Amino acid sequence: MDYYSKQISKLIEEFSSLPGIGAKSAQRLAFHVLNMPLEQVESLSSAILEAKKNVKYCKFCYTLTDDDVCPICKDTARNHKVIMVVENTRDLAAYEKTGKFEGVYHVLHGAISPMLGIGPNDIKLKELMIRLEQDVDEVIIATNSSLEGETTAMYISKLIKPTGIKVTRIASGVPVGGDLEYIDEVTLLRALEGRTVL
Amino acid sequence: MDYYSKQISKLIEEFSSLPGIGAKSAQRLAFHVLNMPLEQVESLSSAILEAKKNVKYCKFCYTLTDDDVCPICKDTARNHKVIMVVENTRDLAAYEKTGKFEGVYHVLHGAISPMLGIGPNDIKLKELMIRLEQDVDEVIIATNSSLEGETTAMYISKLIKPTGIKVTRIASGVPVGGDLEYIDEVTLLRALEGRTVL
Repeated sequence: MDYYSKQISKLIEEFSSLPGIGAKSAQRLAFHVLNMPLEQVESLSSAILEAKKNVKYCKFCYTLTDDDVCPICKDTARNHKVIMVVENTRDLAAYEKTGKFEGVYHVLHGAISPMLGIGPNDIKLKELMIRLEQDVDEVIIATNSSLEGETTAMYISKLIKPTGIKVTRIASGVPVGGDLEYIDEVTLLRALEGRTVL
Repeated sequence: MDYYSKQISKLIEEFSSLPGIGAKSAQRLAFHVLNMPLEQVESLSSAILEAKKNVKYCKFCYTLTDDDVCPICKDTARNHKVIMVVENTRDLAAYEKTGKFEGVYHVLHGAISPMLGIGPNDIKLKELMIRLEQDVDEVIIATNSSLEGETTAMYISKLIKPTGIKVTRIASGVPVGGDLEYIDEVTLLRALEGRTVL
């Protein structure tokens, strides 16, 4: 980085610290910023800081939002008795894009991972259990189908079962349009185990 | 983007406007920023704005730098009579990394492109000609070997020749470690034309 002046080096360094941005991309981004009109740069710079400063957890579902209560939890047309549990806000957005889920969410902000030292107290699980003291019909566990996601799903279902609330897990199997020959064995086995009568 | 709150959407939008960052990466970056400690976010945000505000052209070579004169132009140990002409500051840095060039640079900030409507007056060419009124031994043209880079090289050499200053062009050919079978025909022809006696 000695080939650039101090402030350019600093900018390249900041960009390279972001995920998925290597040394070359960081350079490209830095020079792009230097060539952008000042007002666009101000807009980028302030969007970063303002989002960080103002975005907080929804006090019900813990998704990241600008207000105290997120638009989904505010929406009285949705079924507040069906709660889908997801690992993060991006997963929530992925389900929202389907436009078919009419319940509400609960965002854990992580998954239990003994390997990484993340336990049940490090995710928003207590907060979920408190919500379940209200009248809830069903909890749909939509954590990822990774080792951590499965561990978390198992843990949550064991925790909820004694309350008598119905707990379900999203189906695991072959993705639509997926070509069997490129799909891993575990997924193929899951798809077989989860087969349905036609 | 309706799946996210206003400030998150704004941040995702800002990131997607950067080159090489698609919708998915922009989301990943946005949530990464939201999870970063506030002081790191402040540092990123201010590096962007400060670099834009403080970085300017070196008054001799027009590279992007923090000071009025860049470290290379300030360096009296370098040969100020040999000027390498490059398209941008990244190309300058690429040659600096070789550590073998002891002359100075001139940064054009672009290349002549009739297709894009970029003419000789849109790049720092007049500024180069003014520098050549001083005592200069050689001008090495190191613009890219693209159509625009070649056009620019040709144009500059015609402009300089009447002054009697030596004008050279960096060699074009097979990159070191390049596998002939994967190299385009134009490069192969250039390599053949530029062959040297062993």
